[in-house]
Amino acid sequence: MWWRRPGRRADPASAGLTRSAAGDLADLVERARAADPRAVARLISLVEDESAALPEVAAALAPHTGKAHVIGITGAPGVGKSTTTSAMVVTYRAQERRVGILAVDPSSPFTGGALLGDRVRMQEHATDDGVFIRSMATRGHLGGLAAAAPQAVRVLEAAGCDVVIVETVGVGQSEVEVAGLADTTVVLLAPGMGDAVQAAKAGILEIGNVYCVNKADRDGADATLRELRTMLSIGRNADGQDASSWRPPIVKTVASRAEGVDELVAAIDAHREHMQAAGELESRRQARARAEIEALVVGDLRRMLTQGEASQKLDSLAGDVVSGVSDPFTAAATLRALLGATTRSFQ
Amino acid sequence: MWWRRPGRRADPASAGLTRSAAGDLADLVERARAADPRAVARLISLVEDESAALPEVAAALAPHTGKAHVIGITGAPGVGKSTTTSAMVVTYRAQERRVGILAVDPSSPFTGGALLGDRVRMQEHATDDGVFIRSMATRGHLGGLAAAAPQAVRVLEAAGCDVVIVETVGVGQSEVEVAGLADTTVVLLAPGMGDAVQAAKAGILEIGNVYCVNKADRDGADATLRELRTMLSIGRNADGQDASSWRPPIVKTVASRAEGVDELVAAIDAHREHMQAAGELESRRQARARAEIEALVVGDLRRMLTQGEASQKLDSLAGDVVSGVSDPFTAAATLRALLGATTRSFQ
Repeated sequence: MWWRRPGRRADPASAGLTRSAAGDLADLVERARAADPRAVARLISLVEDESAALPEVAAALAPHTGKAHVIGITGAPGVGKSTTTSAMVVTYRAQERRVGILAVDPSSPFTGGALLGDRVRMQEHATDDGVFIRSMATRGHLGGLAAAAPQAVRVLEAAGCDVVIVETVGVGQSEVEVAGLADTTVVLLAPGMGDAVQAAKAGILEIGNVYCVNKADRDGADATLRELRTMLSIGRNADGQDASSWRPPIVKTVASRAEGVDELVAAIDAHREHMQAAGELESRRQARARAEIEALVVGDLRRMLTQGEASQKLDSLAGDVVSGVSDPFTAAATLRALLGATTRSFQ
Repeated sequence: MWWRRPGRRADPASAGLTRSAAGDLADLVERARAADPRAVARLISLVEDESAALPEVAAALAPHTGKAHVIGITGAPGVGKSTTTSAMVVTYRAQERRVGILAVDPSSPFTGGALLGDRVRMQEHATDDGVFIRSMATRGHLGGLAAAAPQAVRVLEAAGCDVVIVETVGVGQSEVEVAGLADTTVVLLAPGMGDAVQAAKAGILEIGNVYCVNKADRDGADATLRELRTMLSIGRNADGQDASSWRPPIVKTVASRAEGVDELVAAIDAHREHMQAAGELESRRQARARAEIEALVVGDLRRMLTQGEASQKLDSLAGDVVSGVSDPFTAAATLRALLGATTRSFQ
């Protein structure tokens, strides 16, 4: 059956966690709940490596999730996402809130993983037991990170984090869009990184709940702020939102000197309060879970198409398309028929 | 059956092309092959609107495709993609090559479509009957552009374009990645748009066949060039490529003054010749067709999950995940079972 998880998932031993040692998993989850950093790290590794034990990990974590405020931080490379995240952690810790950070970077063939330079800045928090920091690299799995990132968030929730910050590079039509993962999405801009019109083109003016102009001490900060305000007000008018809807605030920061960061954290908290009062937090989480389930189902279909007979048939159909004998739609219809994707329960 | 195309596809009349008027389609394709710009525009509209006639359009075009050199131009917003494309067109036209341009922009709620400001620069070619220009907006369809963009390329191929340039904003893990669509991918950088390390983070140092540092008259151009060269050579060593493999050249341009653009076009041509000699052109096109067929199959699965009973069941499963009663993997397994995705032809 196409939905049977193939490949590495089929070998639980490769995860360093055998099925006979299922007690290990229960113990691991208990230790993570007690905020043992090694247990947290181990669970996130299981998630990241797409361990065969992943479904069991997810099931074990389920009852302990849903409490943290999940904050997405996004923006173009160079706007200062890591510096801002690091400064926010200082504020949260002063408020005695426990913080988890997931830094999601695109993979690179240069290092076999993410470029971790920025992570160094966060090492000031490395000895604080109220802070968990983890970089996650996309490893080229089909939909791998889409499945892994939300699970990693759940590990951090289970470990008692009040706030989980997910930091991603840029936005796109990716399955890993931070907006889909977060309760509150913070979009970072910086002067000289392209104006607000460019930001609009990159699609980031649609996803922010809070906007932050970082490096606000630089030339052009006020211009960026002005343009951003204009673009956002155009968007609002187009949407025809009513008075009760959330109006994304714009905060100015110089994260490297911690300036404006308390205000940024306050704006993020205000967004959560608004969402909760309006019942939007629940509906957003519902949409998120929906997307997550869908990604798993789609990911399995994709995986199946990379293996065995299905993959061979796809190759032969692709050859027909290249030679002009067939077209992609005819080929897709043939493949669908061969996959035997008949629906018994739905029509 | 889940693979039946639902929604707007079910209404061929909405495409302005009824099934009873199938003769219209044959006529349209004939006129497009004779380079009638209105016929070309009409066919691309059918493609872009996900017309119900799309499979028929694809089938009619299939025998006339595969001849053009498909060039992807990508880079961060602001590096000068449109200006460079426009300057390249001048060179191609001087060589009497026919050119098609597809500008793929992210959608924006502000305009109901792409921000078309940059397109204005291309209007100098608007009266040249050897140039077809088309902006395509992503309209939020699930996988819509992934299906539409390669088909639009085929329309331009059928219309006799020797070169088709696909210009996209940025890269990502999108299904519409230009690298998947093109024979030759050109990555544009510009000084002051973030250094080469940032480019590496954004993932663009992996996809280029030709690199172009545009705005080369600006401060920092040489530094950008140097960093880029270093990053690329690190990548090469990591890959362990042999002497016969293609080494992506770096070209300096000032596209706004057409400086270096002939060299850029020559480098792109050299890449195609290399690919053809090495048999890589064929294998790349094979991979592209494969991805396209896969995207159609996956797109249909996604569509099905947004409609009717499947969507309702997904909602209820998502609710269980939010409340901690279930987890995404258990929910996905339940959904897969309900979709009745048993494989008859494959195991």
